Amino acid sequence: MARPLLQVALDNFSLSEALESTLLLAPELDVIEAGTLLCLATGADSIKALRTLYPNNTIVADLKIVDAGGELAGMACDKGADWVTVMCSAANATKVNAMKAATERGGEMQVELFGNWTLEEAAEWRKLGLKQVIYHQSRDALNAGGSWGESNLNMVKNLIDLGFEVSVTGGLTVENISLFKGLPVKCFIAGRSLRNAKDPAAEARKWKMEIAKYWQE
Amino acid sequence: MARPLLQVALDNFSLSEALESTLLLAPELDVIEAGTLLCLATGADSIKALRTLYPNNTIVADLKIVDAGGELAGMACDKGADWVTVMCSAANATKVNAMKAATERGGEMQVELFGNWTLEEAAEWRKLGLKQVIYHQSRDALNAGGSWGESNLNMVKNLIDLGFEVSVTGGLTVENISLFKGLPVKCFIAGRSLRNAKDPAAEARKWKMEIAKYWQE
Repeated sequence: MARPLLQVALDNFSLSEALESTLLLAPELDVIEAGTLLCLATGADSIKALRTLYPNNTIVADLKIVDAGGELAGMACDKGADWVTVMCSAANATKVNAMKAATERGGEMQVELFGNWTLEEAAEWRKLGLKQVIYHQSRDALNAGGSWGESNLNMVKNLIDLGFEVSVTGGLTVENISLFKGLPVKCFIAGRSLRNAKDPAAEARKWKMEIAKYWQE
Repeated sequence: MARPLLQVALDNFSLSEALESTLLLAPELDVIEAGTLLCLATGADSIKALRTLYPNNTIVADLKIVDAGGELAGMACDKGADWVTVMCSAANATKVNAMKAATERGGEMQVELFGNWTLEEAAEWRKLGLKQVIYHQSRDALNAGGSWGESNLNMVKNLIDLGFEVSVTGGLTVENISLFKGLPVKCFIAGRSLRNAKDPAAEARKWKMEIAKYWQE
């Protein structure tokens, strides 16, 4: 079972703030995500800045596409994104247009599982050719007191059984990595818990060591 | 019945392209929308550029928020947006956080009706304090051959009956404005049909005259 990757989500209001984090974190990370907030605040050129600075990391553009799939996915990949996110609530035509535009440019789409969706719909997306999903707990829902439990883990298992590569995110801490033991998680995605740690690089190494404990390569 | 407003959606890859349209169109328009594509391509400062250039128009930031409602709505209103969009599929906590951040800054949220939603959910949003919705046909769905029909109009009526101010968008042309006769539509939103017209200002005047024909102030 491949070892899960570690991804940081850069949800900053400026590129310089995002770079303060990546300067410390990039050597410890596999995947660097230009967060929705960063993209909306600063524009797509921040994707290109990350691509330029970090040629060896996977770069994700978290655009959370809901329409104009071809245009947006094409733009993100042209700026150097490897993976781009599309909302589960987007029309299937949007998902397919985005996937085509990304694939043509050597990229991949990730379906972000937010709000209402069903395993039946997920099975359809798999048939359409989509390979990656992100199992997500919303920031606002977490603020309202949610956490990771058995029902979340079962849903992750169900998605893996459908053939998806599954990344997980939303309120994750180094302490709950062990919950996913035995599951071929694609990426653990963390935002503020890595960026705002006292020593972000040391915190990232803690995550990597915890991941290595449960997933031998 | 108040006369519906005319709104252009600027879905351009650069601010300069967007400004080519607004230079011609702004005097004829009520509402100028920084489209999702423009915001993601160029960043939130384009909202401020539009605010600066067009102090007398209503400025919309079409961020299609799905998470981090307070942060994103706050950013858009700080840049000068009057209205900001949130996806219907966002958690209600996200909608409420966005609404609070917008309201504190004198702005308003618009719920974008995309994908799966029900009138029962819409009634809940109304109770939460949301006042505006955008009844939307997806670009990708329209490309697949959809159009405006009786079921769309009935849905607009139902939303008005719930107490919402309803804007409409997606594949609209000057020819189908008359379909909405008798309904207190908030805004007609057009993108390429205005921007890509041979004479955009003349085309906008055609829309305004058509609107004036059916809605006397």
